[in-house]
Amino acid sequence: MSEQNTGQYSQITIIGIGLIGSSLARAIKRAKLADKLVVYDSDPQAFEKALELNLADVFETDISYAVETADLVILAVPVGAIGIVGSQIGTYLKNGATVTDVGSVKASVLEALQVSVPSGVHLIPGHPVAGTEKSGPEAGFAGLFDGRWCILTPPEGADRTAVQRLTEFWTAIGSTVEIMDAEHHDLVLAITSHVPHLIAYNIVGTASDLETVTRSEVIKYSAGGFRDFTRIAASDPTMWRDVFLNNKDAVLEMLGRFSEDLTALQRAIRWGDGDALYDLFDRTRTIRRRIIDAGQETDAADFGRTHED
Amino acid sequence: MSEQNTGQYSQITIIGIGLIGSSLARAIKRAKLADKLVVYDSDPQAFEKALELNLADVFETDISYAVETADLVILAVPVGAIGIVGSQIGTYLKNGATVTDVGSVKASVLEALQVSVPSGVHLIPGHPVAGTEKSGPEAGFAGLFDGRWCILTPPEGADRTAVQRLTEFWTAIGSTVEIMDAEHHDLVLAITSHVPHLIAYNIVGTASDLETVTRSEVIKYSAGGFRDFTRIAASDPTMWRDVFLNNKDAVLEMLGRFSEDLTALQRAIRWGDGDALYDLFDRTRTIRRRIIDAGQETDAADFGRTHED
Ligand SMILES: NC(=O)c1ccc[n+]([C@@H]2O[C@H](COP(=O)([O-])OP(=O)(O)OC[C@H]3O[C@@H](n4cnc5c(N)ncnc54)[C@H](OP(=O)(O)O)[C@@H]3O)[C@@H](O)[C@H]2O)c1
Ligand SMILES: NC(=O)c1ccc[n+]([C@@H]2O[C@H](COP(=O)([O-])OP(=O)(O)OC[C@H]3O[C@@H](n4cnc5c(N)ncnc54)[C@H](OP(=O)(O)O)[C@@H]3O)[C@@H](O)[C@H]2O)c1
Repeated sequence: MSEQNTGQYSQITIIGIGLIGSSLARAIKRAKLADKLVVYDSDPQAFEKALELNLADVFETDISYAVETADLVILAVPVGAIGIVGSQIGTYLKNGATVTDVGSVKASVLEALQVSVPSGVHLIPGHPVAGTEKSGPEAGFAGLFDGRWCILTPPEGADRTAVQRLTEFWTAIGSTVEIMDAEHHDLVLAITSHVPHLIAYNIVGTASDLETVTRSEVIKYSAGGFRDFTRIAASDPTMWRDVFLNNKDAVLEMLGRFSEDLTALQRAIRWGDGDALYDLFDRTRTIRRRIIDAGQETDAADFGRTHED
Repeated sequence: MSEQNTGQYSQITIIGIGLIGSSLARAIKRAKLADKLVVYDSDPQAFEKALELNLADVFETDISYAVETADLVILAVPVGAIGIVGSQIGTYLKNGATVTDVGSVKASVLEALQVSVPSGVHLIPGHPVAGTEKSGPEAGFAGLFDGRWCILTPPEGADRTAVQRLTEFWTAIGSTVEIMDAEHHDLVLAITSHVPHLIAYNIVGTASDLETVTRSEVIKYSAGGFRDFTRIAASDPTMWRDVFLNNKDAVLEMLGRFSEDLTALQRAIRWGDGDALYDLFDRTRTIRRRIIDAGQETDAADFGRTHED
């Protein structure tokens, strides 16, 4: 990867080489964004797999060696592990280096990392809003971030040049960067990601616990809509447990609104208020249209799931 | 379409040439299941479009002519219109003919049609568990029912030969037929289709009504999971209003369970019960695995939405 580094960092180190970490490694390679790409993962299986897939220049088994000469360190581990990793690497970080992460929650991550990242190091948490339901190094691909948004949540007083460099990095990866504060990020993602995952997990749980409808019936007739929910309900349990434990307030706030609205809908059904139902069902179509127009979704029927003819 | 009819009915008439009706018309043509395929639709636009697409042999503007020589009449109109169409055609139906429908609710349809379908005609309601979020004759395709289930809900005492013929018809269309009573159908579909649609409509509604998060933020960051829900929340509002008005009891029953389970999850989040969250999130993965193994879903990441690399 030594031929013409087009990026701003000489050495980039990725801690955690799962779906997101390995997608980043591939995207860094694709865009030639480092002279040296180093990876570390505490999971021997993920580590071996990444080696086999040749995802980096250096595979480091000692986390301190992995970070000590890095210009950019990217933490791509579950949100609950970010603080731990921070405390493991804090004293080894190079002065002037940048530390970022890709965690789905930002306020708690910022708080956890501020404890251990020393003052000469630029701490700029981030979150690429892109992913799939799969995990691990085999699941990653370089195009994952193309056309998606990456949110950076630099703390107050963050170095502008360092933020600018990280912005350019994500742009070269294929994303568009937006900057906001960590609390707002957590509120936005609670509604666009965390609560959707929660209700998907919940409906799948409800469906598997019924006595009047068998599980095999649920599976057979899942093409009626249910199967859509099973995709995100198949996402990594550790990652999602950590998201809910770390974004409690925003999730509970959005969940409260969801439940209120659902109660109103339930009432409309109970009282046969067809107009109220029609009005909501008509209104929700425009949001999808706008998401498609914004390039964040496919217009193909059924998400483009393969069909004959 | 006169060359070798491989099916059991000479004339098939489809009333309502939208997504489902037009997919059926195409599938009937593909498998050569009729000597004469007739369509009728009360919507001049849909009618014109079907004519343009050459979806049938005869385009009938008078509903009584459309049905009077038919051996199989398929009602593919919204559930709330099925009773009306039944009363329009009842007296014109040929002795020995079969009347079926494709409505997403079955008990109320059976009740509505029993009033008008005369005794010499075989009434066998049905529901192909297949669809997309699109509507209208352009949205249909012959492969829609391939590998999917079609549920028939013949009333007690239905003619076995007539049920057998209709089963063979759906098999030739590409589906596997299951027979159950209308009440059980409505319960099964409440959990595999109706409640999933309701909560999808609901979360999209909740997200568009927030003051703390803008609509443009919801759109930008929808790739975090939210966009999955917008697909089914873009389904036809008339169709879905009718589903909820006509399957009230089963939907309210399943919705009650969903809400109970959601309250338990909310509590687990509030009290930081990571184990309870992990347990549910881990358990729900197996259901998706089984749906994929049953051929009802794609295993491709992200539903196979197109990604580079
Ligand atoms: N998946 C998504 O859609 C998505 C989207 C945007 C952001 N994110 C965020 O990205 C991060 C990573 O998610 P992912 O989907 O890439 O997960 P993943 O595929 O499970 O990969 C995470 C990797 O980090 C390793 N790890 C865990 N704890 C560690 C530690 N203390 N030190 C070093 N490595 C450790 C894991 O090992 P084990 O196998 O032993 O756990 C695993 O190999 C999370 O913070 C998540 O919130 C995910
Ligand atoms: N969409 C799905 O995923 C799906 C799946 C399985 C079953 N179903 C069931 O299939 C049926 C049709 O749904 P669809 O998705 O095909 O809907 P669609 O695309 O909207 O087509 C329905 C067609 O029937 C016409 N119509 C309405 N009332 C009529 C009447 N009284 N007489 C004659 N034609 C009439 C409609 O005209 P207008 O345009 O004027 O309304 C429209 O052209 C519904 O009962 C639904 O529950 C749907």
